[in-house]
Amino acid sequence: MKQAQKYVYFFGHGKAEGHAGMKDLLGGKGAGLCEMTNLGVPVPCGFIVTTEACILYYKQGKSLPEGLDEEVQTHLSRLEESTGKRFGDKENPLLVSIRSGARVSMPGMMDTVLNVGLNDITVQGLAQKTNNPRFAYDSYRRFIAMFSSVVLGIPYEHFEVALDDLKKSMGVNHDTDLDADALRELVKHYKGIVESTKGAPFPSEPNDQLWATIKAVFESWNSQRATTYRKIHKIPDEWGTAVSVVSMVFGNMGEDSGTGVLFTRNPATGEKVLYGEYLPNAQGEDVVAGIRTPYPISKDQDTNGTKNTLEERMPAVYREITRVAAKLEAHYKDMQDIEFTIEKGNLWILQTRSGKRTALAAMKAAVDMVKENLIDKETAILRISPDQLNHLLHPVIDPRAKKEVLCKGLPASPGAVNGMLVFTADEAVKRANMGDRVILVRPETSPEDIHGMYAAQGILTARGGMTSHAAVVARGMGKCCIVGCSEIRVSTENRVAHVGSLDLKEGDWVTLNGSTGEVMRGIIPTIDAAMGDDFTIFIEWVDAVRRLRVRANADTSKDCEVALRFGAEGVGLCRTEHMFFAPDRILAVREMILSSEHEGRKKALAKIKPMQKGDFAEIFRTMGERPVIIRLLDPPLHEFLPKTAEEVAEIAREMRLSPEAIKAQRAKMEEFNPMLGHRGCRLGITTPEIYEMQVEAILEAACELKAEGLDVHPEIMVPLVGTEEEIVFVKACIDKTAKGVMDAKGVRVSYKVGTMIELPRACIVADDIAKVAEFFSFGTNDLTQMTFGFSRDDVGIFLPVYLEKKILKVDPFESLDTQGVGRLIQLAVEKGRKARAGLSVGICGEHGGDSDSVKFCHKAGLDYVSCSPFRVPIAKLAAAQAALEDRMTAQPLE
Amino acid sequence: MKQAQKYVYFFGHGKAEGHAGMKDLLGGKGAGLCEMTNLGVPVPCGFIVTTEACILYYKQGKSLPEGLDEEVQTHLSRLEESTGKRFGDKENPLLVSIRSGARVSMPGMMDTVLNVGLNDITVQGLAQKTNNPRFAYDSYRRFIAMFSSVVLGIPYEHFEVALDDLKKSMGVNHDTDLDADALRELVKHYKGIVESTKGAPFPSEPNDQLWATIKAVFESWNSQRATTYRKIHKIPDEWGTAVSVVSMVFGNMGEDSGTGVLFTRNPATGEKVLYGEYLPNAQGEDVVAGIRTPYPISKDQDTNGTKNTLEERMPAVYREITRVAAKLEAHYKDMQDIEFTIEKGNLWILQTRSGKRTALAAMKAAVDMVKENLIDKETAILRISPDQLNHLLHPVIDPRAKKEVLCKGLPASPGAVNGMLVFTADEAVKRANMGDRVILVRPETSPEDIHGMYAAQGILTARGGMTSHAAVVARGMGKCCIVGCSEIRVSTENRVAHVGSLDLKEGDWVTLNGSTGEVMRGIIPTIDAAMGDDFTIFIEWVDAVRRLRVRANADTSKDCEVALRFGAEGVGLCRTEHMFFAPDRILAVREMILSSEHEGRKKALAKIKPMQKGDFAEIFRTMGERPVIIRLLDPPLHEFLPKTAEEVAEIAREMRLSPEAIKAQRAKMEEFNPMLGHRGCRLGITTPEIYEMQVEAILEAACELKAEGLDVHPEIMVPLVGTEEEIVFVKACIDKTAKGVMDAKGVRVSYKVGTMIELPRACIVADDIAKVAEFFSFGTNDLTQMTFGFSRDDVGIFLPVYLEKKILKVDPFESLDTQGVGRLIQLAVEKGRKARAGLSVGICGEHGGDSDSVKFCHKAGLDYVSCSPFRVPIAKLAAAQAALEDRMTAQPLE
Repeated sequence: MKQAQKYVYFFGHGKAEGHAGMKDLLGGKGAGLCEMTNLGVPVPCGFIVTTEACILYYKQGKSLPEGLDEEVQTHLSRLEESTGKRFGDKENPLLVSIRSGARVSMPGMMDTVLNVGLNDITVQGLAQKTNNPRFAYDSYRRFIAMFSSVVLGIPYEHFEVALDDLKKSMGVNHDTDLDADALRELVKHYKGIVESTKGAPFPSEPNDQLWATIKAVFESWNSQRATTYRKIHKIPDEWGTAVSVVSMVFGNMGEDSGTGVLFTRNPATGEKVLYGEYLPNAQGEDVVAGIRTPYPISKDQDTNGTKNTLEERMPAVYREITRVAAKLEAHYKDMQDIEFTIEKGNLWILQTRSGKRTALAAMKAAVDMVKENLIDKETAILRISPDQLNHLLHPVIDPRAKKEVLCKGLPASPGAVNGMLVFTADEAVKRANMGDRVILVRPETSPEDIHGMYAAQGILTARGGMTSHAAVVARGMGKCCIVGCSEIRVSTENRVAHVGSLDLKEGDWVTLNGSTGEVMRGIIPTIDAAMGDDFTIFIEWVDAVRRLRVRANADTSKDCEVALRFGAEGVGLCRTEHMFFAPDRILAVREMILSSEHEGRKKALAKIKPMQKGDFAEIFRTMGERPVIIRLLDPPLHEFLPKTAEEVAEIAREMRLSPEAIKAQRAKMEEFNPMLGHRGCRLGITTPEIYEMQVEAILEAACELKAEGLDVHPEIMVPLVGTEEEIVFVKACIDKTAKGVMDAKGVRVSYKVGTMIELPRACIVADDIAKVAEFFSFGTNDLTQMTFGFSRDDVGIFLPVYLEKKILKVDPFESLDTQGVGRLIQLAVEKGRKARAGLSVGICGEHGGDSDSVKFCHKAGLDYVSCSPFRVPIAKLAAAQAALEDRMTAQPLE
Repeated sequence: MKQAQKYVYFFGHGKAEGHAGMKDLLGGKGAGLCEMTNLGVPVPCGFIVTTEACILYYKQGKSLPEGLDEEVQTHLSRLEESTGKRFGDKENPLLVSIRSGARVSMPGMMDTVLNVGLNDITVQGLAQKTNNPRFAYDSYRRFIAMFSSVVLGIPYEHFEVALDDLKKSMGVNHDTDLDADALRELVKHYKGIVESTKGAPFPSEPNDQLWATIKAVFESWNSQRATTYRKIHKIPDEWGTAVSVVSMVFGNMGEDSGTGVLFTRNPATGEKVLYGEYLPNAQGEDVVAGIRTPYPISKDQDTNGTKNTLEERMPAVYREITRVAAKLEAHYKDMQDIEFTIEKGNLWILQTRSGKRTALAAMKAAVDMVKENLIDKETAILRISPDQLNHLLHPVIDPRAKKEVLCKGLPASPGAVNGMLVFTADEAVKRANMGDRVILVRPETSPEDIHGMYAAQGILTARGGMTSHAAVVARGMGKCCIVGCSEIRVSTENRVAHVGSLDLKEGDWVTLNGSTGEVMRGIIPTIDAAMGDDFTIFIEWVDAVRRLRVRANADTSKDCEVALRFGAEGVGLCRTEHMFFAPDRILAVREMILSSEHEGRKKALAKIKPMQKGDFAEIFRTMGERPVIIRLLDPPLHEFLPKTAEEVAEIAREMRLSPEAIKAQRAKMEEFNPMLGHRGCRLGITTPEIYEMQVEAILEAACELKAEGLDVHPEIMVPLVGTEEEIVFVKACIDKTAKGVMDAKGVRVSYKVGTMIELPRACIVADDIAKVAEFFSFGTNDLTQMTFGFSRDDVGIFLPVYLEKKILKVDPFESLDTQGVGRLIQLAVEKGRKARAGLSVGICGEHGGDSDSVKFCHKAGLDYVSCSPFRVPIAKLAAAQAALEDRMTAQPLE
C-alpha cells in the first residue's frame, strides 16, 4: 500500500504551497497562480489537485486516490475561511471555477467549468448579494450548460437551440435582451433537457458538482482530442493533468467593479507605458463579446478624451495595478499580458503571461530591457524569434488602410509592394526604365524572365509552389512574390489577367502582400521596413555571440551590395548560370551548345568570356577580401535553348543552319528527368571547354585585381559531384587552366577548389571527395530532392496532402529534414573532416535562411551558412540563438 | 651493407630451386617453369632472376645488385653444362629467350626477346648445326629487330619497312619466300638501321646482349603502359618483375621436330580426350601465322583422314605427351592448355595453363572431374563463372553458319533468334497468333508495347541503352533483345526500317544475336540452350552450398512457370502495373485516372478488380506455398494516359467528355521529373482507392484458394517509402481492407506487409520503417538513381564518357555500386534488423541477376535476391561462390 500523500496545494492571501518551479506537479496554470500569490500579487484563493492524483486515478482503474476526498474537503474549508463565503450557502455562497492544467499548455483539451456551486437556493443568495438577479440567473444558466456538456457529455447545441427558441418566442435578438425572469425560465428548461437526456435530474448538491467536475477533468486527459494532440506534439501520456479550484470573483458587482486586460508595454511599438483597456461593471466575457466599447486604462492613452480611463475613475486601483504590473514584469523579466478583475474596488489578477507583440515592439522592448538592466543581452537575443525579425526587413501593408482582396496565393517572398501590371519580362524592363513601378504577372516564371523579375517591384504567378522558380529566385532577390495564385488566369498574349469576372489589364494598379499571399486592387499604402538603431544594436549583440559565419547567395555585384548592407560576411554561392541568360549573351551561349565541334564551342565561349570576366571583377571589387564562392555552370544545357519560333530562327541564321536542324538538336537534348540528367560537373567532364572558359574568366579577373592591389580569394565550386574521380578530373582541369592564366599574367592568386555536396552518394564517400576538395558546401535543395526522391517542381500535387495528413510535419524544402537529410549531412561532415582536418564546410541551399535549419547547421558543426541577402540577419540571429542554447545545455542554469 | 643474397634460381633436368608457391619472388611464369621441372615434365633448362633483384635495382637508382653479375654467370655455366651448348660458341651456340614475369599476368607489358646470343659468328654455327642457313638467318634478323625495339627503343616499324622494301625489290609476297641470302642481306640492313639511329653498332657480344636485355626487362616494369596497367588493376608498384632466361629449343630442326598446342579435354564440349594440333618441322610462330594447316594430334580427331596425326607420325612422342598431359591435369586439377615443341624427337613443354573453354565444356569438365575425384564439388562450383552459365541458358548462333551482319546495337538480353520483322505490338500479336515467328522493331519501346514484346521472339530498338525500357523488360522476359542500334532508322508509319541504303520491310526475315548485339539478314540457324543432366547435377551442388535464397521477378503466372523451371524459390517482385496495360483493362484504368471524383474512381476500379484478382489467383496457384511478393501500383498515373488522337477520342466517348478536356487533364498531370514525382506510395496516400482495390484483389484471391486448401502466403509490398509515417498510413489502409475481405469471406490468410527500400532516406530511417514494415526489398534500380542523381533514361549521354575516362569503373545500373549504394544498403540492413529482429531482407532490382552484386548481397547478409527467371541459375551460382569464398576467408587453406 502506498503511504498517505499530499494531493492538494493551497494558495491565497500572499502564501501558496507551490511555486513556478512545480509545473510537473501542479500544471502550468496552477504553478502560475501559486507564483503570483507568493509574489504578493492579489490572486483569488484556491487550491490545486496535483497531476499525481490524476495519474493514480488512472492507475487504480479510474478511482480517486485514497485520502483525496478529505484533503479536498479540508482545503475547501480553508477557501471558505479565506473568502468569508461558504460553499452551498444560501446567503453568501462560495462559487468556484474548475479548470484542467497540464505541464505544458494544451489548447485543444482545456476543460473548464465556471460558477460551480450554484443551485436553485444559492442562486438566490447570489442575486441578493449582487443585487442583480439577472446576473445571477445568467450565471446559473451558463453553469448548467457548461457542466452538462463538459461533465455529463450532453451536446452543447441542445442548450444553444433552447436559448434561440426562447429568444425567438420573446421576439428578441440578443442574449442580453433576456431579463431575469426569462433566464429563470431558461434554467428550468435546461434542467428539463438534462433530465430527459440523462434520465436523472441535474445535480443540485454543490459537493456532487465539485467531484463530478474534478473527475471529468481527469477524464478529459484521455479524451480523443487530447490523445491526438499529445501524439502530434509528442507529449507523454503519463504526465496527467492537474485540477485548479479557484474562488470566483466578479467584475459586474456595480460601478466599483470592472474587468480588463493590460500590457506592461505598448505591444505595437514596445514603448514602456501601461497599455490596455477595461470595462466597468462587466465580466471578462463582455469584453470579449464586444457589446460595449471598453475604455483605455490610462490618461495618456485616452486620445478620444472619454475621461473614463481607469486612472481617472478608480485612481487607487490604477496605482495598485501599476505597481502590480511593474512587479510582474520585473519578476518574469518580460513584457506581461495581464487579465484582471475589480470586485467592489478590490483588484484581482486572474492571469499573467508573456505578451504577444509586433516585431517592432519585440525589438524595442528587448533592447530597452537590456538598457534597464532587466535582462542581459543573451536573454534579449533569445527573446526575438528569427521569423519575427523577417517582418522588420520588409515593408508591410499599412494596417489602417482599406483594402479589397482580389484573391490569395502562396506567400512566397515577404514584403508589400504596389505597381502596374505587366505581362512580360521585356515590358517590365521597359516600363521600369521609364521610372514606373511594375508588378510582373506570369503563368509561371523561367530563367528567361530574370531581367524582368529584377526590374519589377513584385512577382505574381498563377502556378507553382513555395519552391517554384519564381519563389526561389524572388526570395533570393528579396523581392515580394506570390505564387500559385490559381484563381488568376493569365493570358500573356492578350495581356490580361482574369480573376473571376474581373479583367486586369496591362497598366492596372495592384498591390501584393507577399507575407500573406493577398493580391489587392489599386495602390494600398505600405509602411517601410524598420531597421533602426535598435536593430543595429541588436545585431551587434548577435554577432558577438554566434559561432556560425553567415554568407549570402549573390549572383551579381548588385546582389553583393545588398548582401553587405545586410551584414553578409562573404558570398557562399555565386551562380553563374543567370549570367548566361543576359540578352547580350544568350545567343553566344546557344551557339556554344548547338556546336557539335570543339572549335565551334571554343569560338562561342570566347564571345562570352570577357563578359563573365567583367561580372566576376565587379563582384570581387564589391566583396573586397571577403571569401567569394563561385559555382561553375550547373543546369542542363537544354535550359538555355531557344523556345519560340523567332528565337529558333535567330540562332539558325547566326549558325547558318536550318530551323529544323536546330529543333532536331533541341529534341535530342530533351531529358526525361532533367534533375537527374546531364548537368553539374557531368557537363564539365563531357564538355570541358565550358569550365575552362569560366575558370579563365575567374582567374583573369582575380589576377588583374591582384595586380591592382586587391587580394581576392576566389573559391571555385564544382557542382553535383558524386564520386572522387569526378572531382579529381575537374580539379585537374581547373588547376591546369588556372596555372595557364597565372603564368600568362605573371600573378599568383590563392584560389581554392571545392565542391557542392548535393547527392546522397557524395555524403557517403565524403572522405574520398575531401581528399581532393578543399571545401564543402551542402546544396540542400538538391540533396533533399535526391534523398526523398522528391522533384521540387512536381511535389505540389502530393506535398499538401502529406502535410495535411501529417505524413510530413514540415515541407522539407522549407525547413531541413534533420532526421534524414540532416543525418547524411552529419555523416559527410564527419567523414570530410576526418580526411581533411579543418575542412571548411557550409550550406548554400534555401535552408541557409531558415532559422531551424540554421540551428541544425550550428549543431552539425558547420562553419557557415549562406542564404539570400535579405535573410542574412535572420540567419545570424538563429546562429546566435543556437550558440546560446549550446551554452545552456553545457552549463545548466543555477 | 646488405648481406650477399640469392638472386637467381635454376631449373632443369627434373629439379628446380623454386616451385609454384614462389610467385612473389619468381613471378608467375618462373614459378610455373620450376613447378613443371619438379614434376618431371620435360622443360628446357633455365634460370630466373628474382623480383627482389628488380626492386633493389630501382632502390639503388637503377644499378644492378651487388653479386648479381657473378650469380648469373654461374647459372649461365650450369645452363651450358645442362644443354651441352655454350653461350657465344661458334659451333654449338647456346641461345636463350629472356622474358619478364610479374606475380600476376600483365598482358599489356610483357617484354620478350628470343634468340639472345646470336651474332655474325654464332649464326653460322646455328646454320651448320641445324643444316638450315635460312632458319639461322631468319632467327638472327628476328632477334635484331626484337632486341632493337625492346632494348634499344628503336621503333619496330623501321624494321618492318625495311623487310617490306626487300620483298618488293625481290618481287615476292611472303616472308617465307625470302631465302638465306636475302635474309643475310636483311641482317646487314638491320644493323645499318641500328647504327645510324643509335650512333653505335649493334652489340655483337652475347654477354652484352644478355645484360642489356635483363636491364631492359627491369626497366619495362616502369614503362608508361605498365604503370597505367597497374593503376587500372590496382597492382602495387613495389612488386617488381622477375626475369626468366631459358635455353631455346627449336621445332624446325627437321621432320623429327615440330611444335603444337593441345588441350587435355575438348574445349568445345568438355569431352575427356586429348585435343590439339601440331606442325612438323615448324616453329610456334608458324602455327600462329597460319602458313601451313596444322595436323590433328590424335587419330580420333583425324576426321579428314590426313594420316598425319602426331599419334601416327611420332607414336613415342605421342605416348609421352599423353602421359605428360595427364600428369599436368592431375597436378593442376584443371583442364590444361599446353604449348610444346619437339626438337629432334625430344618433347619439350614450354607452357601450361588453365584452358579457355566454352560454357558447355566448362560445365561438363567440372562435373566429370568431380566424378573422377580430381576435384571436389566446391572447386567445381568456383570454376564456372556465373556469366559463363548465362550462355547455357539461351540459344546461340550456330558457329558454322554463314552470316551477313547488317548492323550492331547493344547486347541487351542474350540469346539468338530469327523471325519476321513487325513494326507494331499489335501486328506482332496478330502474326504470332497465326503461328509466325516475329521480331518486333521499334524506335524505342514503352509499356504499351508489352503484349507485342511477349508475342515476339526478339526485340530490336533504334534508341535506348542497356537499362532502357526494352532492355529491362526483355531481360525480365528472358527474351533476346538488341537496343540502341543507331544505324537503323525505323519508320513505323511506313513499316520500313532503313539500314544504310537497305530497306527492311514488314515480313522480311532477320536474325538477332542478343549476346553480341549483331543484327543479321535472313534466317541464320541457331543451337538450342543446353541445360542437360550435368547442369542439373551442378545446380544441385550449388543449391546445397549457398545461403542466399533466390527468387524471381515475375509479373504473370506464365513468368512464374518459367521461374519455377529455372529453379526460383518464390517470387520476389510481382509488378502490378503491367497488368494495367492489358488491352481489356487500359480503358478502365484511364477512366479511373481521369475521374476527379472518388465515386468515379471506385466505379472504374470495380471493373479492373475481377481481372486483377484472376491474375493473382493464377500466380498463387502456380507458386503454391512459396512466398510471393506483390508490389502495389508504382508508376506515375500519367504513364497510363492515352497518347494518340484515337485513344483520346475513345476515352472521351466513354467518359462523355470532350477530347480537349482529356488533353487538358493529361497536360495537368505532366511532370518535370516523373522519377521524383507523384508515384509509389504517394499514389496510395493521395488516392487510396487504388491500393484498396489491389489489396482486395490479392486477399480475395488468397482467401478463395485457402478455402480450396492451398495455403498461400501473399507478401504485399509498398513502393517508394521514405518516411515511417508513409508506411504507417498505407499499412493501416491495407490491414483495414484485408480485414474487411477476410471477415466477408470468413477465411484467415497469413499475409505480410513490407516495403521497397529505394530512396536514400529510407535507408537512413530504416529502423523507423522496420518498426512497421515486416520485410524489406531493396529496389536497387531506383536507389542507384537517387543516390547518384542519375536518371536511368538520360544517363546515355554522359555514362559512356564516364566509363571511357574511368570516372566510373562499371555502369552502376549493371553492377551494384558497393562503395556508395552498397553502403546505404548495409546501413539499412543493420538499422532494420536492430529494430526488428529477423527482418527478412532481399533485393529485387536488376542487380539481383548480376553475379558481383549477388556476391555483395551475400556479404551484406541479405536473405534473398530476386531476378529475372532466366538469371536464377546465375544468381544461385554467384550466391554459392560467395558462400564458399566466405568459408575460405574463415578457414585459411592449409
